[in-house]
Amino acid sequence: VKMVHNGIEYGDMQLIAEAYDLLKRVGKLSNEELHQAFSQWNEERLRSFLVEITAAIFAQKDDLTTGDLVDSILDKAKQKGTGKWTSQNGMDLGIPVPTIDAAVSMRGISSFKADRVAAENILGLTVDSVKVDKAAFTELVKDALYFAFVVTYAQGMSLLAEASEEYDYDLNMEEIAKIWRGGCIIRADLLEQMRQAYENDPNLKNLLVAPSFKDHLLETQAAMRKVLATGIESGIPLLAFSTALGYFDAYRTGRLPLNVVQAQRDYFGSHTYERIDKEGIFHTEWEG
Amino acid sequence: VKMVHNGIEYGDMQLIAEAYDLLKRVGKLSNEELHQAFSQWNEERLRSFLVEITAAIFAQKDDLTTGDLVDSILDKAKQKGTGKWTSQNGMDLGIPVPTIDAAVSMRGISSFKADRVAAENILGLTVDSVKVDKAAFTELVKDALYFAFVVTYAQGMSLLAEASEEYDYDLNMEEIAKIWRGGCIIRADLLEQMRQAYENDPNLKNLLVAPSFKDHLLETQAAMRKVLATGIESGIPLLAFSTALGYFDAYRTGRLPLNVVQAQRDYFGSHTYERIDKEGIFHTEWEG
Repeated sequence: VKMVHNGIEYGDMQLIAEAYDLLKRVGKLSNEELHQAFSQWNEERLRSFLVEITAAIFAQKDDLTTGDLVDSILDKAKQKGTGKWTSQNGMDLGIPVPTIDAAVSMRGISSFKADRVAAENILGLTVDSVKVDKAAFTELVKDALYFAFVVTYAQGMSLLAEASEEYDYDLNMEEIAKIWRGGCIIRADLLEQMRQAYENDPNLKNLLVAPSFKDHLLETQAAMRKVLATGIESGIPLLAFSTALGYFDAYRTGRLPLNVVQAQRDYFGSHTYERIDKEGIFHTEWEG
Repeated sequence: VKMVHNGIEYGDMQLIAEAYDLLKRVGKLSNEELHQAFSQWNEERLRSFLVEITAAIFAQKDDLTTGDLVDSILDKAKQKGTGKWTSQNGMDLGIPVPTIDAAVSMRGISSFKADRVAAENILGLTVDSVKVDKAAFTELVKDALYFAFVVTYAQGMSLLAEASEEYDYDLNMEEIAKIWRGGCIIRADLLEQMRQAYENDPNLKNLLVAPSFKDHLLETQAAMRKVLATGIESGIPLLAFSTALGYFDAYRTGRLPLNVVQAQRDYFGSHTYERIDKEGIFHTEWEG
């Protein structure tokens, strides 16, 4: 449970970093404006320990220069391994946590500082091509971050629920949400909604479809799509944001295109496939 | 080497599935038009075994119905584990392969068929909102797929290069690219360019910055951004496409926003940070 807590923490931290990148490089917010935005967000439904300390981080002066400390900190993030373990365990259990995977990837890529600086000179950047209204864009990023937070908790909780079955942990999901509401790094107002979701349905498979989250997700998904499209056009790396939306869109798609993957597997390896209209295992002698 | 080959194979297959989803649901291509498109692509720089068999798959008639076989195949993709191992090893070595991670995630999500069908009823779909020109969109998807293929090979090869150092494998990267040009599932015309890239620089750290790929990537990145933005607006799940672009954008960003992640880690856990202007390890007593 502590490992998955930390995995969600990795996801939330990377999402905040991407929100910061969008607001700074596309929205052109100053550190003072970032401080104001995160402080305001912490009064609303994004209220959480990580949003609160991020607001404080943007206000911190640098003892060694005349600037703000955040601008002097090197962009290489270290890791102790708990995010990685969460991703690796999710893969072993067949329960995807792609936003946690993305956060682990970004810590890795962040460590290649010299390679990134060299690559920027070779491949260039496309930022600055997109103009946005600062206030309106900040509101969109706020809603997109909320959407992505919910999706990340949903991924982590679905992993816990499956682990409980697989390893006979007999976890009480409502109790976990209740405990996490205070004293831990991912504490957030939305954990109370999460607790309610498991109170209503202790066997809930995924928070995305819980009545207490569904309306919030449907309300904020348009902001998420706009922010992502703007970021993608601007060349801002958004691995965590885009995997959150990708997970949501995949999870609510009744018919995915992986029929083609099964066809390919049967074509080159005779791995067989199932059909939509008949029980059983099938193999085709493919032409061409 | 075989494991990483299979990891790249997972990535390429998922990318093809997403291209299919885009062309079918946004571009409104029929199976016959999909067959034509993939057949044509196999005459150009996307020429590869997987594109070739995908073209054949769209032309295959169904023995048990009057329709095309691809439409009767269930969208649950199985896995034997080699993609998962590649992702897990990438995490252990600190070398991100996010498009392979995404492919593994999508096989997992594909297996939750009943949950997806239920979620579609609860969360709805937004496809059909976006209108595109069929021929122009098909060209864009072709270029986006090429871009994403190159990025996926780059991820896999960077993992092999690091594994060679870490485990003293003494791998000859040029030889690997040369061998993969024939007889294996990821064989593709672009492997000859890859071989040349390693011939020019046996210690090349990442194919993204190789002279033989750089211009292709810069030429196709605009198509990639347009296709992704269109797919995101349409609600098409694009985990592999978006992680390919996210990896590219992260790798070529000299200054990532992970300074905030390090600030957070120092704030809540005194994990220290480095600075951009001075050597050493620093810690701050944060205010607020």
